[in-house]
Amino acid sequence: MNEAAEATGFAQLWSSLADIGRDPSTGGYRRFAWTPSDLACRDWFSAQAADRGLTVETDRNGNQWAWWLPGSDEPGGGCAEPAARGALAVGSHLDSVPDGGAFDGPLGVISALSAVDLLRARGWKPHRPVVIANFTDEEGARFGVACAGSRLMTGQLDAARARALRDADGVRMADAMEAAGQDPDALGRDDARLGAIGRFVELHIEQGRDLIDRGAPLGVAGSIWPHGRWRFDFTGEANHAGTTALDDRRDPMLTYAHTVLSARKKARLGGALATFGKVSVEPNGTNAIASRVTAWLDSRAADEKALDAVVERIEAAGRERCERDGTTLTVVNESRTAIVEFNHTLRETIRDTLAERFGPIPQLSTGAGHDAGILAAELPTAMLFVRNPSGLSHTPAEHAETADCLTGVAALAEVVARLAGAPGAGSGV
Amino acid sequence: MNEAAEATGFAQLWSSLADIGRDPSTGGYRRFAWTPSDLACRDWFSAQAADRGLTVETDRNGNQWAWWLPGSDEPGGGCAEPAARGALAVGSHLDSVPDGGAFDGPLGVISALSAVDLLRARGWKPHRPVVIANFTDEEGARFGVACAGSRLMTGQLDAARARALRDADGVRMADAMEAAGQDPDALGRDDARLGAIGRFVELHIEQGRDLIDRGAPLGVAGSIWPHGRWRFDFTGEANHAGTTALDDRRDPMLTYAHTVLSARKKARLGGALATFGKVSVEPNGTNAIASRVTAWLDSRAADEKALDAVVERIEAAGRERCERDGTTLTVVNESRTAIVEFNHTLRETIRDTLAERFGPIPQLSTGAGHDAGILAAELPTAMLFVRNPSGLSHTPAEHAETADCLTGVAALAEVVARLAGAPGAGSGV
Repeated sequence: MNEAAEATGFAQLWSSLADIGRDPSTGGYRRFAWTPSDLACRDWFSAQAADRGLTVETDRNGNQWAWWLPGSDEPGGGCAEPAARGALAVGSHLDSVPDGGAFDGPLGVISALSAVDLLRARGWKPHRPVVIANFTDEEGARFGVACAGSRLMTGQLDAARARALRDADGVRMADAMEAAGQDPDALGRDDARLGAIGRFVELHIEQGRDLIDRGAPLGVAGSIWPHGRWRFDFTGEANHAGTTALDDRRDPMLTYAHTVLSARKKARLGGALATFGKVSVEPNGTNAIASRVTAWLDSRAADEKALDAVVERIEAAGRERCERDGTTLTVVNESRTAIVEFNHTLRETIRDTLAERFGPIPQLSTGAGHDAGILAAELPTAMLFVRNPSGLSHTPAEHAETADCLTGVAALAEVVARLAGAPGAGSGV
Repeated sequence: MNEAAEATGFAQLWSSLADIGRDPSTGGYRRFAWTPSDLACRDWFSAQAADRGLTVETDRNGNQWAWWLPGSDEPGGGCAEPAARGALAVGSHLDSVPDGGAFDGPLGVISALSAVDLLRARGWKPHRPVVIANFTDEEGARFGVACAGSRLMTGQLDAARARALRDADGVRMADAMEAAGQDPDALGRDDARLGAIGRFVELHIEQGRDLIDRGAPLGVAGSIWPHGRWRFDFTGEANHAGTTALDDRRDPMLTYAHTVLSARKKARLGGALATFGKVSVEPNGTNAIASRVTAWLDSRAADEKALDAVVERIEAAGRERCERDGTTLTVVNESRTAIVEFNHTLRETIRDTLAERFGPIPQLSTGAGHDAGILAAELPTAMLFVRNPSGLSHTPAEHAETADCLTGVAALAEVVARLAGAPGAGSGV
């Protein structure tokens, strides 16, 4: 495969996915787990895998796996047992946040498919099984728990709790899965599959400006900051906005507003991140003082102690304001992810492999959670980042130049060749 | 009718309406214009009027009218022309805000029906036509314009604009009306009906604490503060909450929060009211910095100049904060209602009529809009308020004691007897 053919193949893959789940009014994606647009993405994944002769499976937690097995490219091949040990997994996810961009998730899946095409075109053959993953419900946009597919697979998310999660319309995750043909009773830790996978490498668009500043198209992940979500319920008293004297009010919107500003200040002082980006108000009427404001704090910091400190300070600021407003505040930690240090040996192997062709690969830390971070507790995992010239993420404006994407595909192919090839052999370039 | 029978009749009327449109989870009402619960309220009104032999009409703007005509109680009566001149209108509305209480609106309609029962039981007969009104869409909860029925009737709301108003699901008011059998092309100023009505008296639950403080069960309205709704659109840039450095953010939630706190401060300093009770966030994801926060300011003050001043100061505070946050703010005035001074002659007539039996009736000003305020631009109108021991409004907790409600019915009956009876005659008590 020459460079032009490689670029054409990548572009075709990209455009075949581009229209699924895109909101024409915003240009953003709305691919929420188990909705029709997500199911269309899953069908797309199965069809792409089938086109390549890969064996597709859906695991008990809804994650999809497309296997490229040693010997399967030979005549009469392809009948090997997928659950071979020591497989190299690559891939990412296809679901999105509300009005998300095209790259977050899909770039990793499309790059994995393109890397298979590239290696095949070179006549390279796997020595160990290679499997492309599409993890389900990575963003948690519908049911509120990020990385639900990988968390279920590792037991980090309890199956009963997952089944009972509800979306904004009150639909339970169990019912949404069942309607899509997935058995919710089968959810839970998947020892057989975890045992079959030796390593996982997730390629992802960068979600910040680090690679821009370094002038580098690629990076590898060092660690993922510890992070979590906290639900803040501010409760006051509904009343008529036109008839209730200011002194007679118990308005939780004021307490919320004060807490939003405090969160920014406490995060700045603590070198952390703190964001209120999701809000729900009751009764949410123009001429009604709110009875309740529910808002979700997303917070992240370089270490666990710093994260605890900033969240405690934000909560304390909210409580202090409650006394002034006559309101109450309850805070519930909905999810918490410990710091992830990616496997040092795997990371250095990848950096060494890529340095020859691409030069030194910078190492980045990130505040974003990923399936690779969840699986890091079970097996060696690593991440490759592709430069994002917008510096933006979780918006239709997120972007990667095609040249950088193709560099990512080439790098991923090198990594696959190194980690799943015959010992001592290269990628055939 | 003795007092026990009167109380029983009132209680029966009350309970026959109580279950319509009530959300069992909150206990609040969701009777939004032209929804099934509103249509059920309208059917209830028609049935109650028919039970009393009143002639029911729906006008071209969807308001319902139940006529009690001179001579209609005689054998062979009831065939007079409803569009007689100089009628006395009483009544209020049956729709609600989201999770509204049982009294705001319905107390005026039920008290009017009960007053008719009371006067009939006494053998009193109308000398002028009496008509009970159920104004449509008083709260504006669905389409965003309060007092839509009376505003359309008087031409204060343009018919074309009304037809094009959309609810949260994108349904146009015109289509909602048409689905309910109301012709949207007929909307507009209704000179014939305005010409038929001589005076309008609206009984309403008090929406503040004034009558509690005065120890009085009843009050009359002096004026309605000028008030309006302003839509504040705060625009920033969506981005990943976990990967975007604080300095790289353009987060409109911060600008909104600052504006909420400024609104309270400016209102306090200006002796006005200012409330943000309704908010909509895009994309509203837990791990996404908001791209846009839209919030509605409800503001009211004792005079037009004070109202202008407080809204200008709130907008200025928001704009100033935009510079710091890298966000933008646009403000649109969605509705504005001038100060209403209720007719002095009618008010004093009512106070004189009631003083004999109930003692001095206090006069209250209010920040709430009412259909009586809209009609005040066309004909003499007045309002009676019934004490609300909760001091709360637009919440399921709003309340009036039955004894005070029955005092309200008795007072309204006196007012009807005085204003629609033979000159010089009383209520027959």
